[in-house]
Amino acid sequence: MKSENNKSVPLVVIKRLPRYYRYLGELLKQGVTRISSKHLSEKMGVTASQIRQDLNCFGGFGQQGYGYKIENLYHEIGEILGLSRGYRTIIIGAGNLGHALANHSNFEKRGFHLVGIFDNNSELVGSRINQIPVSHIDTIEDFFREKGADIAILALPKHSVKEVVDRLVALGIKGLWNFSYTDIDVPDDVAVENVHLSDSLMTLSYKITEGNTASDLDA
Amino acid sequence: MKSENNKSVPLVVIKRLPRYYRYLGELLKQGVTRISSKHLSEKMGVTASQIRQDLNCFGGFGQQGYGYKIENLYHEIGEILGLSRGYRTIIIGAGNLGHALANHSNFEKRGFHLVGIFDNNSELVGSRINQIPVSHIDTIEDFFREKGADIAILALPKHSVKEVVDRLVALGIKGLWNFSYTDIDVPDDVAVENVHLSDSLMTLSYKITEGNTASDLDA
Repeated sequence: MKSENNKSVPLVVIKRLPRYYRYLGELLKQGVTRISSKHLSEKMGVTASQIRQDLNCFGGFGQQGYGYKIENLYHEIGEILGLSRGYRTIIIGAGNLGHALANHSNFEKRGFHLVGIFDNNSELVGSRINQIPVSHIDTIEDFFREKGADIAILALPKHSVKEVVDRLVALGIKGLWNFSYTDIDVPDDVAVENVHLSDSLMTLSYKITEGNTASDLDA
Repeated sequence: MKSENNKSVPLVVIKRLPRYYRYLGELLKQGVTRISSKHLSEKMGVTASQIRQDLNCFGGFGQQGYGYKIENLYHEIGEILGLSRGYRTIIIGAGNLGHALANHSNFEKRGFHLVGIFDNNSELVGSRINQIPVSHIDTIEDFFREKGADIAILALPKHSVKEVVDRLVALGIKGLWNFSYTDIDVPDDVAVENVHLSDSLMTLSYKITEGNTASDLDA
């Protein structure tokens, strides 16, 4: 489901939406119903004018002296991000990282339903992580035929990635969340989000080397 | 150690440096000594003109018909990122995520030396992860007095983060790599790099919702 306003939202704004969504969700949980751009700006460390500009992009108009209705904004941003769709999610790789991700309670809340975990290590097959059984990677074609999945989380070693990705693409996977330390090559209709941890650690090193540039780089 | 050219490098370029570093490192490992911007651009999925612009920012001049000397470029980028300094790194939180990060062999290669792991769970204290003993968080002041650390990796639950961060800041930590699902508040001289996994997953959801916008968002 595409939001009408959506097409005109610049990419730099889109990239900031998950953070707005997270903050607004926390405020809702605290029972706050509205907030001024000034107050939100103090909480998020972004200028109030940037917040006004960003939120105006998709019709999140604050009223002078009243501020933003948090619940409306929260749901509108969730729609743009596609969070109400619900995604059948599988994890490939049942090592420490796969474990950590399987136990990440926030994902379920955001509509990412963990429905399978796969590994090529027979010793792990049959064990359970967060109540989900670990299956052998060679059963993945059967799994897709019977149940299907939208998103695969790649938590497996670099050298196995290409073969697994090719199989997932052939099975019609819609999105890949890639934790392996390599960029992957997929057709245009498969979405990819990379979490390259080494890149992030190198960025931290740069920030330390340069003194405080943290807020600039995060903006 | 600051590179002379460094100050003039725009932040958007800085953010792309870890990826260049990773690619150049792989090429070096394969024994490649020079590469044209065209060839590098095909490998990285960035335009050749962007590569030329980026690398010119810090004096990485390619020669017409010859290309870039990979080893020079690799070391220059490593210097800008501060990777030659070497960082004493500790992990706070010995759960699945802490385990996964402790076993991440790439970090050591980049100069991040794991020197300690801390947790508040007495059952984990005394166990070893990747040969490093897990110590109780209450010994962290002693640890800093005797040995010190530059970077702390925060792999602990959200509700414990603030207290631990305040202690680390008081102990003179230089950088925090934050995996907890909350933004942290530190003085200006402490560098922070956040890895907000939920934000990344929400971005993937957006990319799936919108069809293929993957390459645009990654650029």
